[in-house]
Amino acid sequence: MTHSADPGRIAPLMGRLWAPLASVTTRWQDKTNAQIAVSIAAASIVPARPRIVIQIYKGNYSHQLIQKSLVFAVNFLRQDQLHLVKAFGFVSGRHQDKLAGVARRTGASGSPILTECWGYLDCRVVNAMDGGDMTCFLAEVLEGDVLDQGEPLWWRNARRMLPPAWAEEWEQKLAGEMAASLQRMGDINYSA
Amino acid sequence: MTHSADPGRIAPLMGRLWAPLASVTTRWQDKTNAQIAVSIAAASIVPARPRIVIQIYKGNYSHQLIQKSLVFAVNFLRQDQLHLVKAFGFVSGRHQDKLAGVARRTGASGSPILTECWGYLDCRVVNAMDGGDMTCFLAEVLEGDVLDQGEPLWWRNARRMLPPAWAEEWEQKLAGEMAASLQRMGDINYSA
Repeated sequence: MTHSADPGRIAPLMGRLWAPLASVTTRWQDKTNAQIAVSIAAASIVPARPRIVIQIYKGNYSHQLIQKSLVFAVNFLRQDQLHLVKAFGFVSGRHQDKLAGVARRTGASGSPILTECWGYLDCRVVNAMDGGDMTCFLAEVLEGDVLDQGEPLWWRNARRMLPPAWAEEWEQKLAGEMAASLQRMGDINYSA
Repeated sequence: MTHSADPGRIAPLMGRLWAPLASVTTRWQDKTNAQIAVSIAAASIVPARPRIVIQIYKGNYSHQLIQKSLVFAVNFLRQDQLHLVKAFGFVSGRHQDKLAGVARRTGASGSPILTECWGYLDCRVVNAMDGGDMTCFLAEVLEGDVLDQGEPLWWRNARRMLPPAWAEEWEQKLAGEMAASLQRMGDINYSA
């Protein structure tokens, strides 16, 4: 099979396959963390049994925690919460508590739920799939709510709102993550 | 853990976690089929190595074919292609050729590519995860393109455009699928 997907040609299409920006929080034992994710899809046609599929990159500290605890919460950001993209998405939680000073409560899963967000889903993992550079978790929703009337914050809008210094910092971080992904994404423990 | 996700409260949130409406096509040996799907997410941060995650329900004829061939194409619909939702989404391909009379070519994966669509991704499965009622396929994109300047057709808009008779037929079909999913979704071959 040939590979001829031109990244520029399919960018408008791939861009429509990302979810609104979310802070993914988790807890394992006494450790909590928050990271930013946009690879989230609905995964149930039964409204009374909501499920989602989420991808977490192996290089992230949250990946270690979620693999052990098998719980997480997805807290979608409001339009006025761009600062959380920087607070949660630009640094690792390995050596600092990113949730310090952030208003939160503990959800049914044990994960931190941000009391200020567009809406949240508190989740328990029911299956997982190796993606090479990331793990794809299938999870059932234990509880959730929408707290805001407006639209959540979408990355395609947020990236245009980033201050230039943040944008530059983001591009540098992303370049490193892309290099790591490129090395790992072929290394799949295949179970199809 | 408690389960207290109120379907009505989280509906606006879950509704934003579906992709644009797509016709998923596949080929296994001399058999081809097309179905409708909206559970599709981007699954790569490396533009030169695009990947997606897609969910296909086990009750669908396409599920049998994709599990054998491990190839499929995702053809996103244009705003003026609501009729394809009915042609591909309301009936099974087990006893009829849903692609008869539909303009198409054969993609790199062997799957039919609709020559008329908003944009398409031709894909090869690289991993799979059991979801109980569905299988979640991780796939790499072999080729793809965007053919239209406008927005693709989103289900939240399309469902309001359905003629009343179609809407009723759809609700009946969905009720049957939801009952089947409810029975199967707990039956996961867990590998996390």
